[in-house]
Amino acid sequence: MKQKITLKKIAKEFGVSISTVSKALKDSHEISQELKNKIQAFATYYHYKPNSLALNLRNQNTKTIGVIIPEIVHHFFTTVITGIEKLANDKGYNVMICLSNESYKKEVLNLQMLASGVVDGIIASVAKETEEKDDYRHFNELINNGIPLVMFDRVVDEINCSKVIADDKGGAILATQQLIKNGCKRIALLTTPDYVTVGNERREGYLMALNDHNMAVDHDLIIKIDDKLTIDEQLSVLFEDGNYPDGIFAVNEIYAATVMKVARGYGYNVPEDIEVIGFTDGLISEFTTPSLTTVAQHGRTMGRKSCELLLDEIDSQDTEYQYKTNLIKTDLTIRDSTKKVQLHN
Amino acid sequence: MKQKITLKKIAKEFGVSISTVSKALKDSHEISQELKNKIQAFATYYHYKPNSLALNLRNQNTKTIGVIIPEIVHHFFTTVITGIEKLANDKGYNVMICLSNESYKKEVLNLQMLASGVVDGIIASVAKETEEKDDYRHFNELINNGIPLVMFDRVVDEINCSKVIADDKGGAILATQQLIKNGCKRIALLTTPDYVTVGNERREGYLMALNDHNMAVDHDLIIKIDDKLTIDEQLSVLFEDGNYPDGIFAVNEIYAATVMKVARGYGYNVPEDIEVIGFTDGLISEFTTPSLTTVAQHGRTMGRKSCELLLDEIDSQDTEYQYKTNLIKTDLTIRDSTKKVQLHN
Repeated sequence: MKQKITLKKIAKEFGVSISTVSKALKDSHEISQELKNKIQAFATYYHYKPNSLALNLRNQNTKTIGVIIPEIVHHFFTTVITGIEKLANDKGYNVMICLSNESYKKEVLNLQMLASGVVDGIIASVAKETEEKDDYRHFNELINNGIPLVMFDRVVDEINCSKVIADDKGGAILATQQLIKNGCKRIALLTTPDYVTVGNERREGYLMALNDHNMAVDHDLIIKIDDKLTIDEQLSVLFEDGNYPDGIFAVNEIYAATVMKVARGYGYNVPEDIEVIGFTDGLISEFTTPSLTTVAQHGRTMGRKSCELLLDEIDSQDTEYQYKTNLIKTDLTIRDSTKKVQLHN
Repeated sequence: MKQKITLKKIAKEFGVSISTVSKALKDSHEISQELKNKIQAFATYYHYKPNSLALNLRNQNTKTIGVIIPEIVHHFFTTVITGIEKLANDKGYNVMICLSNESYKKEVLNLQMLASGVVDGIIASVAKETEEKDDYRHFNELINNGIPLVMFDRVVDEINCSKVIADDKGGAILATQQLIKNGCKRIALLTTPDYVTVGNERREGYLMALNDHNMAVDHDLIIKIDDKLTIDEQLSVLFEDGNYPDGIFAVNEIYAATVMKVARGYGYNVPEDIEVIGFTDGLISEFTTPSLTTVAQHGRTMGRKSCELLLDEIDSQDTEYQYKTNLIKTDLTIRDSTKKVQLHN
């Protein structure tokens, strides 16, 4: 890519002709004041210059990479950063991290700050609020501005750049299959609200595995957790009427660790009565009792790969850089929250 | 403060007269080439200008704060960042985070990068390697350069700036006293190597509490954990000869959670046989079985306070800004790894 902001792009952005943009930038009286203001503000904001902006930016060479993550109190993201840091440092790059705190507005601010000549490229995972709004113009403007961007984990189709994703669906299939193999008949899913893409991928994997084994889907067993409310209370519905699940697949480790506590509170034992599998690289999983069987996400590998793709794009002299999408395979880390079943093949 | 780099300061740094510095900067033949090279490099590095550099920097007003933390896979630091972010955002500041990864060299690099006009001020916690080297010139040069700095948690006397610290000693006293009150007679301490200041403060609190209760110190019960080695193995010595401790105070939650696992492996029950108290705001503590009694460090409060002091200094017009040191009180969060003892006062 290495695209620069051009008259053509500005024209496309405002749905007007190139000559209109050109006139607006020359403050022609033919164009309405309102449109001129907008176009001029846009051009100024993106440092529009008749000659190559992108080349200017490239020559700066800050030897710094910017990373935007949605949350910091989340072990997965910190693991990804560890992977990014390691490769970046090895290659002589420093890393700056910004948090979107799941906020669209902060994500826009962070991008503006990092893109103002502070970094050579950006690695980002999109904020929940941005997914909810379904508005990715800030990312696309960055790309159009010639700044290399790699997205990881929470990626979206609407952004055209290199991407590194975990095999969320595959991981969910593995987890659900394991519970089925172990003999579970009523398998619950603890997932996120619908607008979270990775949550959807994992739910799809869960549904596919059930389907493959001709097991009916019981929608009462699918709990979409609202993080703004108390998780414990939302999970209690699974145990209140005595018709409890015998297997639980949770799309993250907090949900998994919490459901083990809630189940214990109702007098159920893990894994004897209920088997539980989480999804993460988290720290908690090792220290719960029983320790938690999880789908390993390999955050470190994801970070390293994201950094590799970004540096590749930064170093590329190719004006038509081909974006790559890299799928990081997931696998099961078997611990004590699932039964040790001898399988006869 | 708002000190700028002056001839006087350069002179002091090299232990020469001001006129020598002045001559060196003018490339005078009176000064040796070696000294001229050093002084010129120093002046260039710090953007020495005859008129106020500090004022230049102030006027830039990036509305961004830089934060340097030693590790990101450490819940305490992420909690502090949450506190910094909240206040900074409320006040219209953005936050950039850099990791030193406990490395002196990376800490120096981060400071250079952040101080190059990217941020209005810096909040930092010092890297272990820097403490080990006992070399803080990079921080002091930053301060002399007029860039506001606030240190938190891992602070050192050698750096003259505002500081926010947890009451580490007080917290350790509280924890040890609790174990004594609960009837423990052989109280072990799991701590860090000697060069870690906060570890030392906590050890001192432990020793003071024992002393206050006329309990002898058994040095076999003080384990200094080397994080580069397997923690489990280092902890096993406590249980190998059957003369196990009945109380354990660990200076962080990983040590505490790990010792509970190791003790269980040796057939001991927590809290019946051994009571355990950790030190942290960590996530793990809530999910261990039994859940972990800890000294609460209030990382969020520490972050908020650090940010408050930094913004105060950034906003100050005072050329002789008075540094402040803020002590964040710690207290005990009682969970299930200690006995519920009815105390008769």
